[in-house]
Amino acid sequence: MPETIFEVDTDAPIDEQPDPIVNRWHPDVPPAASIEPGEKVRIECLDWTGNQVVNDDTANDIRDMRLDPNHHLSGPFEVKGAEPGDILVVDILDLGPFPDHEWGFTGIFEQENGGGFLTDHFPDAAKAIWDLDGVMTHSRHVEDVRFPGCAHPGIMGTAPSHELLEEWNRREQELIDQGPDRETAVNHETRKEQPPLALPPEPNEVLLGGMDEEDVPEAAEKAARTIPPRENAGNCDIKNLGRGSRVYIPVFVEGANFITGDLHFSQGDGEITFCGAIEMAGWIDLRVDLIKNGVAKFGTDYAMFKPGYQDPDFSNYVVFEGYSVDEDGTQHYKNANIGMRRACLDAIDYLTNFGYTAEQAYIILSTAPVESRIAGIVDLPNTCVTVSVPNEVFDIDIDPDTLSNGGVGGDRGSAAKPT
Amino acid sequence: MPETIFEVDTDAPIDEQPDPIVNRWHPDVPPAASIEPGEKVRIECLDWTGNQVVNDDTANDIRDMRLDPNHHLSGPFEVKGAEPGDILVVDILDLGPFPDHEWGFTGIFEQENGGGFLTDHFPDAAKAIWDLDGVMTHSRHVEDVRFPGCAHPGIMGTAPSHELLEEWNRREQELIDQGPDRETAVNHETRKEQPPLALPPEPNEVLLGGMDEEDVPEAAEKAARTIPPRENAGNCDIKNLGRGSRVYIPVFVEGANFITGDLHFSQGDGEITFCGAIEMAGWIDLRVDLIKNGVAKFGTDYAMFKPGYQDPDFSNYVVFEGYSVDEDGTQHYKNANIGMRRACLDAIDYLTNFGYTAEQAYIILSTAPVESRIAGIVDLPNTCVTVSVPNEVFDIDIDPDTLSNGGVGGDRGSAAKPT
Amino acid sequence: MPETIFEVDTDAPIDEQPDPIVNRWHPDVPPAASIEPGEKVRIECLDWTGNQVVNDDTANDIRDMRLDPNHHLSGPFEVKGAEPGDILVVDILDLGPFPDHEWGFTGIFEQENGGGFLTDHFPDAAKAIWDLDGVMTHSRHVEDVRFPGCAHPGIMGTAPSHELLEEWNRREQELIDQGPDRETAVNHETRKEQPPLALPPEPNEVLLGGMDEEDVPEAAEKAARTIPPRENAGNCDIKNLGRGSRVYIPVFVEGANFITGDLHFSQGDGEITFCGAIEMAGWIDLRVDLIKNGVAKFGTDYAMFKPGYQDPDFSNYVVFEGYSVDEDGTQHYKNANIGMRRACLDAIDYLTNFGYTAEQAYIILSTAPVESRIAGIVDLPNTCVTVSVPNEVFDIDIDPDTLSNGGVGGDRGSAAKPT
Amino acid sequence: MPETIFEVDTDAPIDEQPDPIVNRWHPDVPPAASIEPGEKVRIECLDWTGNQVVNDDTANDIRDMRLDPNHHLSGPFEVKGAEPGDILVVDILDLGPFPDHEWGFTGIFEQENGGGFLTDHFPDAAKAIWDLDGVMTHSRHVEDVRFPGCAHPGIMGTAPSHELLEEWNRREQELIDQGPDRETAVNHETRKEQPPLALPPEPNEVLLGGMDEEDVPEAAEKAARTIPPRENAGNCDIKNLGRGSRVYIPVFVEGANFITGDLHFSQGDGEITFCGAIEMAGWIDLRVDLIKNGVAKFGTDYAMFKPGYQDPDFSNYVVFEGYSVDEDGTQHYKNANIGMRRACLDAIDYLTNFGYTAEQAYIILSTAPVESRIAGIVDLPNTCVTVSVPNEVFDIDIDPDTLSNGGVGGDRGSAAKPT
Repeated sequence: MPETIFEVDTDAPIDEQPDPIVNRWHPDVPPAASIEPGEKVRIECLDWTGNQVVNDDTANDIRDMRLDPNHHLSGPFEVKGAEPGDILVVDILDLGPFPDHEWGFTGIFEQENGGGFLTDHFPDAAKAIWDLDGVMTHSRHVEDVRFPGCAHPGIMGTAPSHELLEEWNRREQELIDQGPDRETAVNHETRKEQPPLALPPEPNEVLLGGMDEEDVPEAAEKAARTIPPRENAGNCDIKNLGRGSRVYIPVFVEGANFITGDLHFSQGDGEITFCGAIEMAGWIDLRVDLIKNGVAKFGTDYAMFKPGYQDPDFSNYVVFEGYSVDEDGTQHYKNANIGMRRACLDAIDYLTNFGYTAEQAYIILSTAPVESRIAGIVDLPNTCVTVSVPNEVFDIDIDPDTLSNGGVGGDRGSAAKPT
Repeated sequence: MPETIFEVDTDAPIDEQPDPIVNRWHPDVPPAASIEPGEKVRIECLDWTGNQVVNDDTANDIRDMRLDPNHHLSGPFEVKGAEPGDILVVDILDLGPFPDHEWGFTGIFEQENGGGFLTDHFPDAAKAIWDLDGVMTHSRHVEDVRFPGCAHPGIMGTAPSHELLEEWNRREQELIDQGPDRETAVNHETRKEQPPLALPPEPNEVLLGGMDEEDVPEAAEKAARTIPPRENAGNCDIKNLGRGSRVYIPVFVEGANFITGDLHFSQGDGEITFCGAIEMAGWIDLRVDLIKNGVAKFGTDYAMFKPGYQDPDFSNYVVFEGYSVDEDGTQHYKNANIGMRRACLDAIDYLTNFGYTAEQAYIILSTAPVESRIAGIVDLPNTCVTVSVPNEVFDIDIDPDTLSNGGVGGDRGSAAKPT
Repeated sequence: MPETIFEVDTDAPIDEQPDPIVNRWHPDVPPAASIEPGEKVRIECLDWTGNQVVNDDTANDIRDMRLDPNHHLSGPFEVKGAEPGDILVVDILDLGPFPDHEWGFTGIFEQENGGGFLTDHFPDAAKAIWDLDGVMTHSRHVEDVRFPGCAHPGIMGTAPSHELLEEWNRREQELIDQGPDRETAVNHETRKEQPPLALPPEPNEVLLGGMDEEDVPEAAEKAARTIPPRENAGNCDIKNLGRGSRVYIPVFVEGANFITGDLHFSQGDGEITFCGAIEMAGWIDLRVDLIKNGVAKFGTDYAMFKPGYQDPDFSNYVVFEGYSVDEDGTQHYKNANIGMRRACLDAIDYLTNFGYTAEQAYIILSTAPVESRIAGIVDLPNTCVTVSVPNEVFDIDIDPDTLSNGGVGGDRGSAAKPT
Repeated sequence: MPETIFEVDTDAPIDEQPDPIVNRWHPDVPPAASIEPGEKVRIECLDWTGNQVVNDDTANDIRDMRLDPNHHLSGPFEVKGAEPGDILVVDILDLGPFPDHEWGFTGIFEQENGGGFLTDHFPDAAKAIWDLDGVMTHSRHVEDVRFPGCAHPGIMGTAPSHELLEEWNRREQELIDQGPDRETAVNHETRKEQPPLALPPEPNEVLLGGMDEEDVPEAAEKAARTIPPRENAGNCDIKNLGRGSRVYIPVFVEGANFITGDLHFSQGDGEITFCGAIEMAGWIDLRVDLIKNGVAKFGTDYAMFKPGYQDPDFSNYVVFEGYSVDEDGTQHYKNANIGMRRACLDAIDYLTNFGYTAEQAYIILSTAPVESRIAGIVDLPNTCVTVSVPNEVFDIDIDPDTLSNGGVGGDRGSAAKPT
């Protein structure tokens, strides 16, 4: 087992963690540890909410989630010799839940508090707890579903330089300024999604690792939120970044200051419920290396990776199509997001034929290895997105021919609700 | 061989085709032939441009493309017994080019005349001719690329009812009305993409199959363009709809009035250059069947399908990430299209390291079995899209580790240009 | 379409074929046509039995099969510039049945006349006719089975040199001499398999292409039977040699004198019923090339290949294990053949739970893309062989959990029998 | 983490293990622990040699291996309620090496002491140590090879009944009696393989778990060796029995008395060097369940399983063919073992073109996820076996086209040798 260079405690409050948690991107957060190129290390991670969710049968914790302090991450880690312009190579060797904590959760956030991709249709909080049985998972809140996960870190990233951080703040503030009325997350009358367009630096509940306390207030004014992925990779939430993958991330500061966390046991493309993967606390084993001057060599702006050959290998899919026409019949211009939404909504409607509630179906799409592809992006105005649901994740048969022959009814339980 | 129920001639003008071509959606186009449920048939199809492209080494034909008459399609075909509310089941048994016409083409359209997904970066016409060798293809215009295609029809659809057609026209006109200044396809000064937001019915060069000539003018005023996919499936351009697939399409009129065409030898997700697959004339063998009252049974709005187990089975991918920040640094709100664009641009930059021109790389992404997935859709404001390029389609090794060790240079020729 | 360099007629007797058929390996058979390196060609092929089987519902043709004249092959083809020591590179571009002949057959031979892998258990003739629907197939004699085939040539080979032919005859005669009592194919009393140990040159019904008639008698005394695969590749019967594959075969004579035929629409590993693939007449498109002095470069004795990325991509298997203990309890020493037999017998017994007759199950194992792997070869005395049956080829669900919950009965018809 | 019901110590001698090791099959070995149906448990396992191999750069340990005490296994475990005729369902949830012991080994045994599949060609001891990095592995003794393993237990089995044990002893003794001269493992003059045909009960170094010492001598006279797989599954050595697999094993005694061990990090089909997987000590997490009266329900003789969808998903293979002709030109009758041997020998010769020693190549075939299929079993006398080597396991490119263009030389180190 590689040496553990960062420890967490799933039972302790955030301010009593063995190593200081970080929840913002900032170049001046001091490294929590150092790694040599070629070295492999173990890093422990809290779940992204920092222990806010418990293994029970209500969704009160999801409903009452404090969002400002997320994500709760581990790092930064200095990579010896890393310089701006290098590419950091990260091999994802293995990851998993803690031995005494073999469960994960998926939440549907309240529309007023976080929302999700289909929040107009699912405005209320709900939760599913998943038992993690080695590579397999199942949930008492979504019955007759059982599948192997492609566990992966939701977040891996390098620290931005001061210049890059300023650029992030500039461009995101410009976007925020386009929607000044969207300060509140939702229009309560229409229940139409009205989240803020982006999240500005939020000094509330900021965690900057081991930074000197006196330096925190100034840094907190500029430190970037960890929700979006950006040039430094960050919260990419790519379901295929599993064991055996090799990731290439640009370096922006001396030492790279690598941060990771937000471990997922499994995720569908899009992670659509927002708290949408099978979220878990756990450990991840990595080996890091450097490609000196790699950014110039590759000529690319963003992170790249090679998958690990061990994604679940399903072949028996039911595929749903969606186009960029809203549910109310409004035509949008080549909008892949709406295409995906319509395909997801069709998939949800379809799965309810088999005894699942719409919420359960929403959770299945968000957690199982579902593929969402941009099939056609040039056929204006209707971008076509496909959502492919693997039949193999169900204990029952969801084939359309089976359905047309009478189908498979049944009671599949229900997601946990607030009490 | 199934009986051929629709013939085309790749050497004849459109008005001298053996069976009358159709290029709009309208409920009143009379069937060209009838099919019994359970029957298998062969349908011949022109390439989508109706013989406008030739197998040569210039891109003049692409530059001068007449767009109004596209797509050139085969049908409609009455399916006996089909009624509104049924689902039409279409088995894609096989398809291919004509024996004396074993080549296909990919075009990059002029920005002023059609454009494409990355038209700001590729404003000029270009073309690649592909030799079709059984299941394999290669191009003298994109060297050291050789791969098996997952041949599929770009278009399969049922006729809309009058009500549905009206709805399409309503909603698309509403969108058009939002961009009255976008009448011309492009702003010549900025060269920024300014295509129309949608295409209204266009009586110019309308083809309504065997409709009585006297009825055509009125129908042409309402008949829908075939560019976008809609509730009737239509121009879905899904690269995985290959041999062995089974497709489920809602029926809106008596007899279904099924139309198909726009055959592709291979396509990458998105079909990004617009004339973007390996476009071919050829034949397709189908078997049709009906699920009576299937729309109510399934409860879905759009088409669905099951893939055919014979997509090219690649495993060795190089994956590029993109987020919804424009090339000029403008931040957009959860925009998957921009995420895909950035990932594509990175992939193109990366491939130029191996001796490909940017145009060639653009063509590769558009034609080879490239996967574009919406990885994370909820991490505002930066939707993450991944573009996965299979190393197996290259005769050379495009692995990042190979590149960082010095790479593989070379001259790979160039796409055809206008003369 | 490549030029057709060899034609056959599925309605004509063998001695009235448009091009002369060949059914033995001999260096002196003159080429039927010539091919340039880099050229692609179409070759037509009879089914391996030379039109002996008809599309009907009896198995009389299988029962009465004349075996001596098999296989009926196309060639030889001279490859310009090929010399002994070169490697012939063959790209399998495409293949299929004739348009007016879209069916194939699978036979279980009589124990007294050919037998098969499990002839002790299936001593009587039976037949299944398969409809070939593009890439899909199904059979009225084996219901509720429907799958895409990985079509491939059973036979591709180069002519042996005189020296190599002598070596074949020497070593095979030595084997024959070990079983002098096995002249007849079977012991009628015990019905235990007693086929000849090998097949010596058989002048009866010999076909040596266009060889001068006066030279035939002498050549026929030495010409090798085409049943076994050998150094020249020959009757390899490899189910994965499908479209897109590239094959590397040693050259033994000037011009290579390549022969092909015995086309299969699909086959399971082992081709266990002997007439065991979905056998078809049809055409094959190939491109050939040469690696000069390739045998020395590679240092290998036998043929090699790269698969074509388009085998049916199944993932949902039920796997049966077998060990080298005979059905009567006799222990054998590390015998993979017996391991495979026991696994096949278990698979057959298992499938009868779902309404299939044992004969139908035997045919399914022989024709569908079933994987038979030598799992453990060193654990004396019991070599373990696994036989993996893809659930996806059935319209019903053959999962063991489904069976343990009550299963899926039903009548699946029956194979054709002699009348 | 499931409760650990069996512990081992990789530093302690066998007679000082925390739980008593078992190395023979016998119905009267008392259970080491009990499991409820539906329960998941963790079982620790020694490597199969019982700590005889060390992580160093000599092969002395392999040369001097004591074979009689192998395999060193964990169990038996009573499954509550299991009765003869039931089927035991075992879900393989996860497995791995111990955290302080993340390495494995592959040995080539001396011809005089164990041998292996190609012992005639590789008579001398050699060893490779593999670093286990999460799901990835690489070896200082076989450079430029790096791949994900499909970790699996080599052995899982139920206790035989007294009747079944007698049957085993009967049939195996009958085989032994056919080769009375094969008492010694090898003919020193010819160096031809002459291992015993089977291994009779061996009282030397017998370990019967917690059996009363006074009962051991009598039981040891009959207890079956653990080398071969048999009706109770046992040493199946199936490389695809990885995480997520579900195995179905017949029950022969009350409580099933399940035993497991011989963990492999990865294995090629055949496990050809005998000590041939990447052998490791470690832990395995299982869930067990019962199908009451399952043997009658299934009607099968041997174990069955469903794979776990997470085998390494490679697509880029180089495939070698072999037929049943011995290296000295002796023709054998439809012998799949010899076909596999010839294909392996060709693969080994081929890999030496890339700088590997023959021993290293032999080790690669034995450990990487290599597929060995019985392609054609009916084409007498030459059974065709294919051995498919995934290009993806190499850091270099082993494609035949690369080789014919000049290839990739280099020094890849060497396996460890005795000193």
